[in-house]
Amino acid sequence: MKKSLISLIVLPLFLSSYGGMWEPYQIPSLKKELRDAGFYKNVNSISSPFEYPMNAIVSLGYCSAAFISPEGLIATNYHCVERDFIQPNSSAENDLFEKGFIARSKSEEIQAAPGQKIYVTLESTDITSEILEGTTDDTDSVERFKIIENNSKAIIKNCETSDEIECRVRSFFSGETYKLEKVLQLKDARLVYAPPAHVGEYGGEIDNWMYPRHTGDFALVRAYVGKDGSSKEYAEDNVPYSSESFLKVSAKGVEEGDFVMVLGYPGRTNRLLTFNQREYDLSVGFKNYVNFLESRINLINTHTNDEDGSSLAYRGAKSGAENYYKKISGQIQGAKNFNVLQRERENWAQFQKYVTANASSADKAYLNELLAIVDKDIANTESNRYFGGSTLIDFAYYLMRNAEERMKEDDQRKSGFQERDQSNIKNRIKYLNNSFNIRVDKELFLANLATYRTFSNELRRPVYSELLSLDNSSEDTLEQVNTIYSTSYSTPESMLQLYDMSFEEISKLDDPLISFVVSIYDENRDNEELREKSSARKQLLRSKFIKLLRSYYQSIDKQIYADANSTLRVTFGNVMGSTLRDAVYYHPFTKLEGILEKNTGVEPFNISKSLETLIKSKDYGPYASKELGSVPVNFLSDLDITNGNSGSATINNNFELVGLAFDGMLETIISDYSFIPEARTISVDSRYLLWTLDKVENAENLLEEIEIVN
Amino acid sequence: MKKSLISLIVLPLFLSSYGGMWEPYQIPSLKKELRDAGFYKNVNSISSPFEYPMNAIVSLGYCSAAFISPEGLIATNYHCVERDFIQPNSSAENDLFEKGFIARSKSEEIQAAPGQKIYVTLESTDITSEILEGTTDDTDSVERFKIIENNSKAIIKNCETSDEIECRVRSFFSGETYKLEKVLQLKDARLVYAPPAHVGEYGGEIDNWMYPRHTGDFALVRAYVGKDGSSKEYAEDNVPYSSESFLKVSAKGVEEGDFVMVLGYPGRTNRLLTFNQREYDLSVGFKNYVNFLESRINLINTHTNDEDGSSLAYRGAKSGAENYYKKISGQIQGAKNFNVLQRERENWAQFQKYVTANASSADKAYLNELLAIVDKDIANTESNRYFGGSTLIDFAYYLMRNAEERMKEDDQRKSGFQERDQSNIKNRIKYLNNSFNIRVDKELFLANLATYRTFSNELRRPVYSELLSLDNSSEDTLEQVNTIYSTSYSTPESMLQLYDMSFEEISKLDDPLISFVVSIYDENRDNEELREKSSARKQLLRSKFIKLLRSYYQSIDKQIYADANSTLRVTFGNVMGSTLRDAVYYHPFTKLEGILEKNTGVEPFNISKSLETLIKSKDYGPYASKELGSVPVNFLSDLDITNGNSGSATINNNFELVGLAFDGMLETIISDYSFIPEARTISVDSRYLLWTLDKVENAENLLEEIEIVN
Repeated sequence: MKKSLISLIVLPLFLSSYGGMWEPYQIPSLKKELRDAGFYKNVNSISSPFEYPMNAIVSLGYCSAAFISPEGLIATNYHCVERDFIQPNSSAENDLFEKGFIARSKSEEIQAAPGQKIYVTLESTDITSEILEGTTDDTDSVERFKIIENNSKAIIKNCETSDEIECRVRSFFSGETYKLEKVLQLKDARLVYAPPAHVGEYGGEIDNWMYPRHTGDFALVRAYVGKDGSSKEYAEDNVPYSSESFLKVSAKGVEEGDFVMVLGYPGRTNRLLTFNQREYDLSVGFKNYVNFLESRINLINTHTNDEDGSSLAYRGAKSGAENYYKKISGQIQGAKNFNVLQRERENWAQFQKYVTANASSADKAYLNELLAIVDKDIANTESNRYFGGSTLIDFAYYLMRNAEERMKEDDQRKSGFQERDQSNIKNRIKYLNNSFNIRVDKELFLANLATYRTFSNELRRPVYSELLSLDNSSEDTLEQVNTIYSTSYSTPESMLQLYDMSFEEISKLDDPLISFVVSIYDENRDNEELREKSSARKQLLRSKFIKLLRSYYQSIDKQIYADANSTLRVTFGNVMGSTLRDAVYYHPFTKLEGILEKNTGVEPFNISKSLETLIKSKDYGPYASKELGSVPVNFLSDLDITNGNSGSATINNNFELVGLAFDGMLETIISDYSFIPEARTISVDSRYLLWTLDKVENAENLLEEIEIVN
Repeated sequence: MKKSLISLIVLPLFLSSYGGMWEPYQIPSLKKELRDAGFYKNVNSISSPFEYPMNAIVSLGYCSAAFISPEGLIATNYHCVERDFIQPNSSAENDLFEKGFIARSKSEEIQAAPGQKIYVTLESTDITSEILEGTTDDTDSVERFKIIENNSKAIIKNCETSDEIECRVRSFFSGETYKLEKVLQLKDARLVYAPPAHVGEYGGEIDNWMYPRHTGDFALVRAYVGKDGSSKEYAEDNVPYSSESFLKVSAKGVEEGDFVMVLGYPGRTNRLLTFNQREYDLSVGFKNYVNFLESRINLINTHTNDEDGSSLAYRGAKSGAENYYKKISGQIQGAKNFNVLQRERENWAQFQKYVTANASSADKAYLNELLAIVDKDIANTESNRYFGGSTLIDFAYYLMRNAEERMKEDDQRKSGFQERDQSNIKNRIKYLNNSFNIRVDKELFLANLATYRTFSNELRRPVYSELLSLDNSSEDTLEQVNTIYSTSYSTPESMLQLYDMSFEEISKLDDPLISFVVSIYDENRDNEELREKSSARKQLLRSKFIKLLRSYYQSIDKQIYADANSTLRVTFGNVMGSTLRDAVYYHPFTKLEGILEKNTGVEPFNISKSLETLIKSKDYGPYASKELGSVPVNFLSDLDITNGNSGSATINNNFELVGLAFDGMLETIISDYSFIPEARTISVDSRYLLWTLDKVENAENLLEEIEIVN
């Protein structure tokens, strides 16, 4: 087994069949690779999303999770329950972040934030031909866009037969394939167990994306339904959902070299790009983006303060920018360290050779057209980055655009503006109460304009540029912006008034913001149509590209998998350590004593005195790894995950839960963009979860409910 | 072998017989330990400093080194030759730091700075009874101090029979033993080879005290003598020194687990302290010292600038403070991580138990007296730290003190003020031209006074305090200081005038600085005598303590070694990696490719393009380690070294040079203070040296001269 592991490392990148976020149906064709990795069961046993163990896997919308009891008990990450399970149940007097939470019986389980759902995938159907029905390769792109959108809306409408069901059209391979995902929404989700933050997010931002890691990133929730078994909103007399399929939890765990799989819902990757896009991203684009983020962070720091609450309002925007800053910086570093551009260049050259020798002249023309469109997009990337950036203007335009769509019949509207979307639009406005400050917004906008004005005329929008005096002095621009920002529609309340107006009513308003939006309206709409047209064309061109790519990989006996798109995927591999720097080896397991080593008493390294004492007592129970001589806390594997996989079940050959995936390593985060075999997944070990439930929490009720395998 | 290595880790600390900077004569009694570590030769073969291989080891004064050819060729560290070999031969047009230097024949070898010597130890004699002759345990301490000093001066005078010879009285075990070291001074030292700084100090301050490490910290120099073989200053027709004893250089190197020794001249350790001193240092003293250093660094940053050259003048002081800041901070962290205080407390309790049961009542009384004196010293440590600190005042006092001594016959003077010391005193004054700025000096002094004034009266010197108005307002103090600093003796030139004056002439000068110094003169002299008295008493008391300690260790079948004191020592052990944090293992070897990994093109990680190409070519020659698959660059061992060991030969079982020790790890630097088995020595690998001479430098002349073992 070890030998096959090592061989992974010398394989070429660029859609290597290793790594891989596979759709379950692809699993049987990966038999050899699975056997090499040490999987010894029938490969067909993991090929259906609707059979055990796959159907034990659920989604929280933004995170993955898994049933671990027949009564709807679900294991996921601590960081997946913070916002919607812990926060709404916390107060200054009863701070569940500080204290943690454990329900000693089902009656003590507490309600999640309204709107929180558990999603169980019921069906997944290939609907490519239905989505493309009415189009040919020669259909005009504007028309093509409309047809696809209308087909999609119709399919969803037909599918959503009850309010228990949500249906989603998912594009695979940039629209080469479409699938309809039919999902059961369980609307009553309750918190069962969350450790205190000093365990659940031990290491905080400092350890984020880092290994060695010692985070107890686990939590338990439960799905409830109505007494009749149907999906219902929270009600006191709801009953636990009967989860026929669930994972047993291993108290034995895994050891170095063992086979593991992760089942979950990865959100988004970008591994199927053309080389011109990669060349731009890796030599220019990432760096520019990082600079942009850095200036955003600095601007927010400069222009916000505690006194007027603006610091708080922009905390989310700032931490988002910081998070991306860290991630993209890590990707830049990783691309350099792992020589990604050069390797992608070589792989692309191989692909080009194949195309030259084997593709039809039509397919070659399609490919060339795609490359040209990508080149054009690249040429506009930088100026687009600095276009707009005024939340005030964006919302005014958005509401006017919504008003335009609302003049149409519901099924004729653009998606995003249908009746089903309206409550969401209003919520977005209300959310501005916590995330918007007009003074700061203006400063951010002015900073964008200062850069936007430096682009040549052909890269800028003419009406927008003229109205904002971008060819005149900065003082003139400032004057225009001040005028726009003197609007009467700068608060969420006044925006809700706009929301209620018709398109005509808005158009007639005598207000500097609205006048500006009216003036740029046609230019924006023209751009929207251009984007749609381009998008429809790219859907066609990328489909052709993917077919070429697939046949190229078939020619070298490999298969490809679609970029992550929040659908159920499988990744498999082995528990293994990591050597990323000369002479430094990361062992695949961390242990309880490592928690003490990092403990400074200061957040984010501040475990409780009682936990410290407990660890020092070495009362490991049956949860210690013999090899390690302690209870494993987190472990590394070479599995292939990304955002959205948080909370995914890490399982062994017997489909027992051995961990919950919760992070990657910054050094190899470039893997989201271009898979590298050095990438590692960090899981929290099932033995640490069980040790905590047993020794720390004395949670007998839960330990009895969970089927523990010794 | 491996098993015995592991056993090191569980042994108690506090003068454990492991680790250890042994005097050669102790080696035969360590046979068991040597065998356990894998030494298979006759243990007597390394017990004499005047036989091979010990007599191949030499000193540069501040660094260790070793002969590696019969013609006086010497290997040492790059950082040992920077100041006195490279700097004096470098200029803007011919920057040897940038270019490196290699002599293609002996005639190209270049002269070191005047005064640079190579020291070869000729004799080492126990002179304890001679030094103490005329004293008994009951001799008054003031008298005792004088007797010891006079005996010492007389012994040195008798010993230094020619100017080829330097003699030094060295105290071992705080004066329990004295030895006379008779040293041959070779006065013509020349640079043979130094790599460019981008190799020799690759990683610079960032990697200082760090592992994984990739520094080519090696250089070659040569000792020259007169044609008649006698030690002579530099002369063109001098000839290479005939070094009968020299080390062969291994091209095979060592592998993980192999036995290694380091032979060299460690400078200073503090491992034989009483527990009350340790308790103070580890709970208060180190922290206070670090705070003091931090404030010094900040003061220098605040008060120096480029315009008046003060930045440059205080660069040395600042980098010294920064270096100590890093080191002591590392010691504080290490003491915490390795629980040093607790372990020392337990060991002291064991020792106390032994004392209670076995020591005579006289010895118990001596020990209690020692502890009381240490307590008193501790009580004065903080105020003493902030006493003085004016270079201006210090020098004025120093010159007056010198003038007082010069009134006496030479052999009656205090050591440090004899004729043999006078040129050194003048050099110190001249050196102020590059290291002193009166404005900055005043600021540093004022900062010290601001703290010194906060101590209670009994902790302060009364005359000094009164004259500086320390009980009045800060404004008054400032006025006094301003007056003192308005002196006419503030430049090195004017101080040299003072130097030429008699005690009486100085005393009569009408100058505010001199008046101040005259006023505090008696107080300072009284303090000097108190210190001498205390020092003589402590010499007696510590001798008694050491005898107790030795008999305690004998009772548990261990022996002790003296703290480092710049005499020849042996430390032995094994090549081994290091685990200092949970799940992180440092492999004992780094390799060529690791240099590339760190290379950013920006100092201190900026290797030349040609070196980069050469490493990429994988042209390892016969210098690769099979296990590593590359040429080893640096390696770790569990040897016990400290400052002064820089450049020490790391040798294998066959006494072949396999590396040059050059650094420790910050994480375990606490070892200087309290040995911990986790401590590691970093050596540059002989294979990297040979690979560089061969592949990078094509230094056929040197490769032929060195006896290389394949």
